[in-house]
Amino acid sequence: MITKNTTGQVDVLIVGAGPAGLMMATWMNACGINTRIVDKRGTKIFNGQADGLQCRTLEIFDSFDFGHRAWRDSNHMLEICLWNPNSEGVIQRSDRIADTIPGISRFQQCVLHQGRIERYFLDAMSKTGISVERGVMPTKLELDESLAEDPDAYPITITLRHLSEEEATPKQSATSANGAAIEDGLFRSNMAADDTEDMIRKAELNNKANTVEVVKAKYVLGADGAHSWVRNQLGFKLEGESTDYIWGVLDIIPITDFPDIRMRCAIHSASSGSVMVIPRENKLVRLYIQLTTTNAEGGQKFDRSKITPEFILASAQKIMAPYKITYRYCDWWTAYQIGQRVGTNFSAQERIFLAGDAVHTHSPKAGQGMNVSMQDAYNLGWKVASVVKGHSDRSILKTYQSERRRVAQDLIAFDHKFSRLFSGRPAKDVMDEEGISMAEFKLAFEKGNLFASGTAVDYGKSLIVVKEGDAAEQGDGSDVATKDKSLQISSNQALASKLDIGMRIPSFKVLSQADARPWHFQELLKSNGTWRVIVFAGNLGSPQQTEKLATIGKALGASDSFVRRFTPKTSKADSVFEILAVHSGRRQHTTIFDFPEVFRNFDERDGWDYSKILVDDQSYHEGHGHIYDNYGIDPEQGCAVILRPDQYISYIGPVDDYDTLDKFFSGFMISQNSVEATEKSKAEMSQ
Amino acid sequence: MITKNTTGQVDVLIVGAGPAGLMMATWMNACGINTRIVDKRGTKIFNGQADGLQCRTLEIFDSFDFGHRAWRDSNHMLEICLWNPNSEGVIQRSDRIADTIPGISRFQQCVLHQGRIERYFLDAMSKTGISVERGVMPTKLELDESLAEDPDAYPITITLRHLSEEEATPKQSATSANGAAIEDGLFRSNMAADDTEDMIRKAELNNKANTVEVVKAKYVLGADGAHSWVRNQLGFKLEGESTDYIWGVLDIIPITDFPDIRMRCAIHSASSGSVMVIPRENKLVRLYIQLTTTNAEGGQKFDRSKITPEFILASAQKIMAPYKITYRYCDWWTAYQIGQRVGTNFSAQERIFLAGDAVHTHSPKAGQGMNVSMQDAYNLGWKVASVVKGHSDRSILKTYQSERRRVAQDLIAFDHKFSRLFSGRPAKDVMDEEGISMAEFKLAFEKGNLFASGTAVDYGKSLIVVKEGDAAEQGDGSDVATKDKSLQISSNQALASKLDIGMRIPSFKVLSQADARPWHFQELLKSNGTWRVIVFAGNLGSPQQTEKLATIGKALGASDSFVRRFTPKTSKADSVFEILAVHSGRRQHTTIFDFPEVFRNFDERDGWDYSKILVDDQSYHEGHGHIYDNYGIDPEQGCAVILRPDQYISYIGPVDDYDTLDKFFSGFMISQNSVEATEKSKAEMSQ
Repeated sequence: MITKNTTGQVDVLIVGAGPAGLMMATWMNACGINTRIVDKRGTKIFNGQADGLQCRTLEIFDSFDFGHRAWRDSNHMLEICLWNPNSEGVIQRSDRIADTIPGISRFQQCVLHQGRIERYFLDAMSKTGISVERGVMPTKLELDESLAEDPDAYPITITLRHLSEEEATPKQSATSANGAAIEDGLFRSNMAADDTEDMIRKAELNNKANTVEVVKAKYVLGADGAHSWVRNQLGFKLEGESTDYIWGVLDIIPITDFPDIRMRCAIHSASSGSVMVIPRENKLVRLYIQLTTTNAEGGQKFDRSKITPEFILASAQKIMAPYKITYRYCDWWTAYQIGQRVGTNFSAQERIFLAGDAVHTHSPKAGQGMNVSMQDAYNLGWKVASVVKGHSDRSILKTYQSERRRVAQDLIAFDHKFSRLFSGRPAKDVMDEEGISMAEFKLAFEKGNLFASGTAVDYGKSLIVVKEGDAAEQGDGSDVATKDKSLQISSNQALASKLDIGMRIPSFKVLSQADARPWHFQELLKSNGTWRVIVFAGNLGSPQQTEKLATIGKALGASDSFVRRFTPKTSKADSVFEILAVHSGRRQHTTIFDFPEVFRNFDERDGWDYSKILVDDQSYHEGHGHIYDNYGIDPEQGCAVILRPDQYISYIGPVDDYDTLDKFFSGFMISQNSVEATEKSKAEMSQ
Repeated sequence: MITKNTTGQVDVLIVGAGPAGLMMATWMNACGINTRIVDKRGTKIFNGQADGLQCRTLEIFDSFDFGHRAWRDSNHMLEICLWNPNSEGVIQRSDRIADTIPGISRFQQCVLHQGRIERYFLDAMSKTGISVERGVMPTKLELDESLAEDPDAYPITITLRHLSEEEATPKQSATSANGAAIEDGLFRSNMAADDTEDMIRKAELNNKANTVEVVKAKYVLGADGAHSWVRNQLGFKLEGESTDYIWGVLDIIPITDFPDIRMRCAIHSASSGSVMVIPRENKLVRLYIQLTTTNAEGGQKFDRSKITPEFILASAQKIMAPYKITYRYCDWWTAYQIGQRVGTNFSAQERIFLAGDAVHTHSPKAGQGMNVSMQDAYNLGWKVASVVKGHSDRSILKTYQSERRRVAQDLIAFDHKFSRLFSGRPAKDVMDEEGISMAEFKLAFEKGNLFASGTAVDYGKSLIVVKEGDAAEQGDGSDVATKDKSLQISSNQALASKLDIGMRIPSFKVLSQADARPWHFQELLKSNGTWRVIVFAGNLGSPQQTEKLATIGKALGASDSFVRRFTPKTSKADSVFEILAVHSGRRQHTTIFDFPEVFRNFDERDGWDYSKILVDDQSYHEGHGHIYDNYGIDPEQGCAVILRPDQYISYIGPVDDYDTLDKFFSGFMISQNSVEATEKSKAEMSQ
């Protein structure tokens, strides 16, 4: 659907095709936004081949219809085993913890090759014809600040250089200076077999090599990594520090008698340092190994050329003794020094945004980096799309920095604590004040698990999150409160006591009224850019609930409702808002025809929409989701919930309080009566 | 891995690339057998675009790693609604039944476009380089019976003609003589978008057009449909009859106020006939509509040119009144007359086999045809592969007809009864003897559900199914008993009281000992051609069970065990037999190193095998499978189970009775000490 704009204009230009850039491109694609994504490298790079996937990341993948691929291809991690020295200083298993806290998500934390993950994005994008332009590098970036607030302007001018093949071929990675034959992050793993097309594309690079192109863009995303060129152009900084800890990473197929090698393990030896074991797909295991000898040098930058796989393995063997570990096959290895930094600014004028490593770096061991980066772009994508389409005004864009810079700050604080506990020497006893208490470590691990799942993210108050408290305090300090006092509204949290405004909606099973099929509720909340108003109508056996349903159905269906005002007349009825009903009566006592039409839009070709009326009832084969109980909703009361296009909860209120819903959306959405005319005339002009 | 044999020899030649032929090719592919598959048509054909997928078929798909694709793409059917005339003769919903009996499978019956299903097979085959040779038609078939029992011979000579493009283009279907513009089974649905490659291949057909090739084959499968050319060459017949009932089929996106249109419905009107509603993917609904007016003609072959979509719709409208139904979009339509026939022979000399519609035809409404056809090939495939590889002698091949002809006979009996009940007029009251009792209909539907799930198939006693009774009686009459009296053995059914010898093993969740991951047991039983010996070791806290485990582990691991004798020396240890352990102790009290080595084979590159030791214990996120309870196995007793490569249960006996296991396999498997030498010299000769 998206064709490359040949006039040199593009709505969104993404710099960098790592996980954050690909997430943004996939979002733009899903929303039908004219987009280009460029990467200076001629091929995908594998500098850091494995990564943990958080529960929340899998939920997001599923909302783009490829969660199942990651879930099938990855190694699932179920249990964390903690190994500590016993009184004789010999390591032993001291504890087991669930790797993912039971019940927080329908997915559990798992691990998968980054190249594979990028493949899912590329496949998803390719369905509508967008692809990464590789070997393309920005060389100049200008923002005309006077045009920043003009929704129709293209205030960004960016110069792109198409590199020659030689230029686009990645050099040796900075994190591994050893030129040994073993793959060290630069070469493809021989276990991944889906990069043929990239190889072909690389060969074709020369056609355009060394040409230069000037592009006008409405929005730019810099997702170009820790050394972000875009960030540097804007003059923004990363703030924070490096630690002295140096870690080695080995991806091997281990030959070992260590019994927990297929579990995630944190092994603290008495005095030889620590190992973290991350079991991966295809029999691989990743070991994060503390290279204690480097500590001895007193914080000096260590000469990394001394680090070889043999050196790292020898350290692991010392830490894991008396168990034996060796390998015949090493897939990749590297070493790194922990640094923890957060960007000062996440955007320039809400026109040029930064995401991922460009605005936060930290230790890889918690498996957060790729996840938080993708979630940056996931937070940003729908907002930009909504503004570009003229559905929302630009005020919502400020929430990106407010929400995501705060997350990055929390992440760095977490990582700081966690790394210290992991890198330190275990305390010999309670009197050993320099050592790390293993009880404290376990507690941190358990707490860390919730954080690391990605489901604990809690966005602060803003014009799109209606909750109590101070907007600036709950975010990164940015001013994102509703400006127009007449549109200020409140949620009624008590109506859904177990839902948290500002957090992603948890998922339980519901049945489709029309065909009795069980769905995880989140499966119905695809990332397509639509807002959702979910009417938990309650028990329709009660006349009071039936009346509320009729009231809200009538108001939502009225010709002057926000649904109509903010949806372009030529678009499908559910293209901006999806109106869902979840009732708690018996499925078999109801049909979709008992519901107002706004819950089952009629289409001349497709007939009634059977997909938007759901019920909290027993299924034939998959139990009962008890979504009312799990959300804390009283069936004799019900409630209405507004969900953002990214599944975060904006608002909770009474079923039949239409006016508050209308005020909420009136705070930032644009009436389509006038816009349509404008859009139309613009389209005519540009022809 | 499989390269096309250019010398004109092939181990297995498959004629027909419908579901049965594709299943066979996929099996051969999974087992690494040199195979060709030809189809006279130049492209896939869509004559019958939707089909029900049984639970068992989905299980089989999953064993080939594409079950999840069908499960995601299909429409799931959860509930059957029965609609019957009330006392005023107006239809009303009289009953609801679960479409799939809860608990019989981890999948439920669903519906999906046949072209999509064929795509899964083609994708699976393409991974190892095999593809359908389209526009290729056999013109001559000879079997040298004198060579039939020589395992090294290629006794079949088949002439293949490569057709011109014009010849290979399918003609109008026999079942729809109407040339209207609406797609009637010959044209692609515009809702399926993955046939580009076929179109390309079609265009390339001309290269080889009109050449002729003579091929020598060890085995041939005729999966060439109801008008099977292979069957006709062999002189075999289909026995049975046609009924007078004529049915119309409409695939439409309905516009209707009928409340159960997304349920599977059986609607009996008082006097206008019956409709079956099958909700499909992509908003489509299939209607099977009895064209009562054709009955009036008293069994004469009806002039089908009178049948149009409008004619069929008008019949549906009459039957479904007072509800209204119409459509804007019709995807496909056809009409058919029910015929029920079974082939007299399923093979010639166990060299040329027939499968699918070539040996059984029946009404499509029960959604059985494609399933039973694929399951024919699924039954045959591993047997042929095992014989071609020299692992088994030819005696096992007789079980194909014994097992599958019996299934076909049972299917026809079921279909006969079901069609009669469905096509008949509902009884007005108990005195109405000509009418069909709706109570009887409901009962038949409920029973039919079990049959239709495909999980009720129960193969009779034979040399590969150790159970009580008479082998000929339990099959189709073929003699498939164990010949060598000294090798006759008995199962001990009581040791797993809820498993049925001869049936596929049902699936419950177990945990992997090494990483605590929950798996549906069947997920671990991939279709790769291996036999499985599953040692249910019981509670390893009990010394007696530990001792039994040690005993069987030692015997299986011995250098003269059947595992070693029947596995080629150069093959991987688990290439012919997978030895699995499922224990019932606490996972956390055990490690894989508590098990004999035969359960965790060591590989020089890959280390220990962590995948074959399982435990019946509580998982963190997916409950407790209770597989011992569900199989009726006493943890203080345990048992050993032999599973065929197709997941059917061959034998149940004591944990530590090694001798009986050895006798079982000695009944038909070939020692690899001598064979290897033979194979080697053969390979040398053929170079």
